[in-house]
Amino acid sequence: MSDFREQALHYHAHPVPGKISVELTKPAETVKDLALAYSPGVAEPVREIAADPANAYRYTGKGNMVAVISNGTAILGLGNLGPLASKPVMEGKALLFKRFAGLDSIDIEVKHRTTEDFINTVANIADTFGGINLEDIKAPECFEIEKALIERCDIPVFHDDQHGTAIVTAAGMLNALEVQGKDIHDAIIVCLGAGAAAIACMELLIKCGAQREHIYMLDRKGVIHTRRDDLNEYKKLFANNTDKRTLQDVIAEADVFVGVSGPDLLSPEDLKLMADKPVVFACSNPDPEINPEVAHGARNDLIMATGRSDYPNQVNNVLCFPFIFRGALDVRATAINDEMKIAAVEAIRGIAKEPVPEQVLKAADVESLEFGAEYIIPKPMDPRLLPRIAKAVAQAAIDSGVAQIDLPENYMAQFES
Amino acid sequence: MSDFREQALHYHAHPVPGKISVELTKPAETVKDLALAYSPGVAEPVREIAADPANAYRYTGKGNMVAVISNGTAILGLGNLGPLASKPVMEGKALLFKRFAGLDSIDIEVKHRTTEDFINTVANIADTFGGINLEDIKAPECFEIEKALIERCDIPVFHDDQHGTAIVTAAGMLNALEVQGKDIHDAIIVCLGAGAAAIACMELLIKCGAQREHIYMLDRKGVIHTRRDDLNEYKKLFANNTDKRTLQDVIAEADVFVGVSGPDLLSPEDLKLMADKPVVFACSNPDPEINPEVAHGARNDLIMATGRSDYPNQVNNVLCFPFIFRGALDVRATAINDEMKIAAVEAIRGIAKEPVPEQVLKAADVESLEFGAEYIIPKPMDPRLLPRIAKAVAQAAIDSGVAQIDLPENYMAQFES
Repeated sequence: MSDFREQALHYHAHPVPGKISVELTKPAETVKDLALAYSPGVAEPVREIAADPANAYRYTGKGNMVAVISNGTAILGLGNLGPLASKPVMEGKALLFKRFAGLDSIDIEVKHRTTEDFINTVANIADTFGGINLEDIKAPECFEIEKALIERCDIPVFHDDQHGTAIVTAAGMLNALEVQGKDIHDAIIVCLGAGAAAIACMELLIKCGAQREHIYMLDRKGVIHTRRDDLNEYKKLFANNTDKRTLQDVIAEADVFVGVSGPDLLSPEDLKLMADKPVVFACSNPDPEINPEVAHGARNDLIMATGRSDYPNQVNNVLCFPFIFRGALDVRATAINDEMKIAAVEAIRGIAKEPVPEQVLKAADVESLEFGAEYIIPKPMDPRLLPRIAKAVAQAAIDSGVAQIDLPENYMAQFES
Repeated sequence: MSDFREQALHYHAHPVPGKISVELTKPAETVKDLALAYSPGVAEPVREIAADPANAYRYTGKGNMVAVISNGTAILGLGNLGPLASKPVMEGKALLFKRFAGLDSIDIEVKHRTTEDFINTVANIADTFGGINLEDIKAPECFEIEKALIERCDIPVFHDDQHGTAIVTAAGMLNALEVQGKDIHDAIIVCLGAGAAAIACMELLIKCGAQREHIYMLDRKGVIHTRRDDLNEYKKLFANNTDKRTLQDVIAEADVFVGVSGPDLLSPEDLKLMADKPVVFACSNPDPEINPEVAHGARNDLIMATGRSDYPNQVNNVLCFPFIFRGALDVRATAINDEMKIAAVEAIRGIAKEPVPEQVLKAADVESLEFGAEYIIPKPMDPRLLPRIAKAVAQAAIDSGVAQIDLPENYMAQFES
């Protein structure tokens, strides 16, 4: 681990500090070049944009630019370390946007004085970008922040810790239930954790067919139920009218466990109480709610997913966020709505069910991958993710009326190189 | 002109919209790469920065990143067209930062609701950057904005329209006076225009030796004098205790004319009233206060500079801003103070007095350039600007106590490739 620590620090420090740079996309060598790029030529696109704001997409980088914005209040699992300390994560996210979807992306770290001030700051700079990815902002402020920014900005605003996690979880979950021969409409679901990701996952599962009254959500105090008076407005939506109070109470006969909490909170004994053919998503990172070997030792009829790359079925946000933004930006969507999220879920599900390209097997260092208990979610290096998810999301944006332009006829051709 | 217009729009639109992109500076191909760049490896630099904020310069791009920030209230000569319309200019400035000084630079367009709100927004995002270049912000708000941001930010904040213009003007002016055999301490100076650039130019000339009471500044209403009651606090500093009221009153026997106003406001007759061997900086762009051919036709003992690249002695901010930021960032200066500005003035002056490299002559398409009436300011393509100005500014930052680190011993070597 110390070795890995040294490697990670070295990677960030050498040969230059950080992970991203800004480069020119146009010639800037000659006096003529500069006269076009800056004064006096630049006055022409300025005039065009002043006449019609949509021309910003034609003459500037706005339409391909995603800001990764954080206040540093919930950095990875490390907590509230402030905006500056979050910068490596935000630059990393920007790197992933470029690497996976060709989107130009820049990190912006914002001092959080008050929630209102934070919202105002982000809304004030939104013109600069084609989309805003909120990141590592603690709950419950993140809900109010996202809601307010969606209202105030005419570009997509997406809190990836909520919705990226929810989309990949829902895709994997629906596939897992299909493999287990179960129906999401009937599934009894236990969600351990009641933070931003947990709430977003459950809301999206409900949109995909789960019954709200079949969901038992637990926070540090146990089951969230209707007689508790300590619930914020977001948890309250999951208050279950039940007498059950503990994880053990609700896990019995549950079909699904979703953990977005902490390490080793689900015991093998708990797992044995679950219904036949259960689905266990133990997404606490790096240490899951139950270790996969332990889980498979306790029972052999389960399907399991974690947040880790060294076990099958990794729930990894990178399967979604680069591509949902790619699709949204390609049709200048004014928002990322539920229809687009569900389109992403279905696109991810579909890829997992199809034969896997040779290069994906090589990258994953496996001989074969076939849809089933050990492969319900595509691999991050799968080249089909970008075109398939982007196209599906863009089409959903068009169909749901939030797209400002159509996809070009040759849209898919760009992904073929 | 229509042809040039088409070229400028085509340049901005093709092959991709805009002028800058974000690229990766680190490998991001393999699963291992991504584990270092993002989760879990990124936690290591996060912890290091949380422990010591200075580590942000070691593990992120902060130290090489300049934000070009505008509210779009004074875009070029086009006026207040709002933040979005200013984006091509800000991207152009970012392009120049990269092209001339290797600085990563990103544009941020900010909605201006109130001056306080604008200041607050920029201060809130300042952690992201190594320096902030304010651009195209109208007077008098720009003064308050810059002052407040300098106080609130621990990184350099520099309004280029003021200080970049002032530094290049002062360098050219001091050289022109030297060629004319005049002393800045005795010079009678007329400044036509009382906006941000005009005020900054005069303040810097005073720091370089000009006498405040020798300066006659004019706004649209004529000479700024002590009996006027319509002056804002910035103009008031230049209220001259004089009975002179018009340009014609003050231009008589003046040694220096600085125009930061509008086209054709200085007539050949006005010019003829000036003292022997006058210096005329007609910087209105693209059309100067007096056309150089007209001026030289009116008298043959003057030295003239304009904002145009097609006449000798172009006053061009690009001679300063990339390099002053390069020097400031290379020693992590907490501000760009007067000592650093004056060091930039002297470095620019010095370059103009030395033999000109062959490649500069070629780029300028001339056979020779020798210090004198037709060559008082270096050319923008001069490769000596970067090392010389950056080094001088960095040294001035160190000497004046605003640098946080020393220059590396081999500092100049980086510029030799």
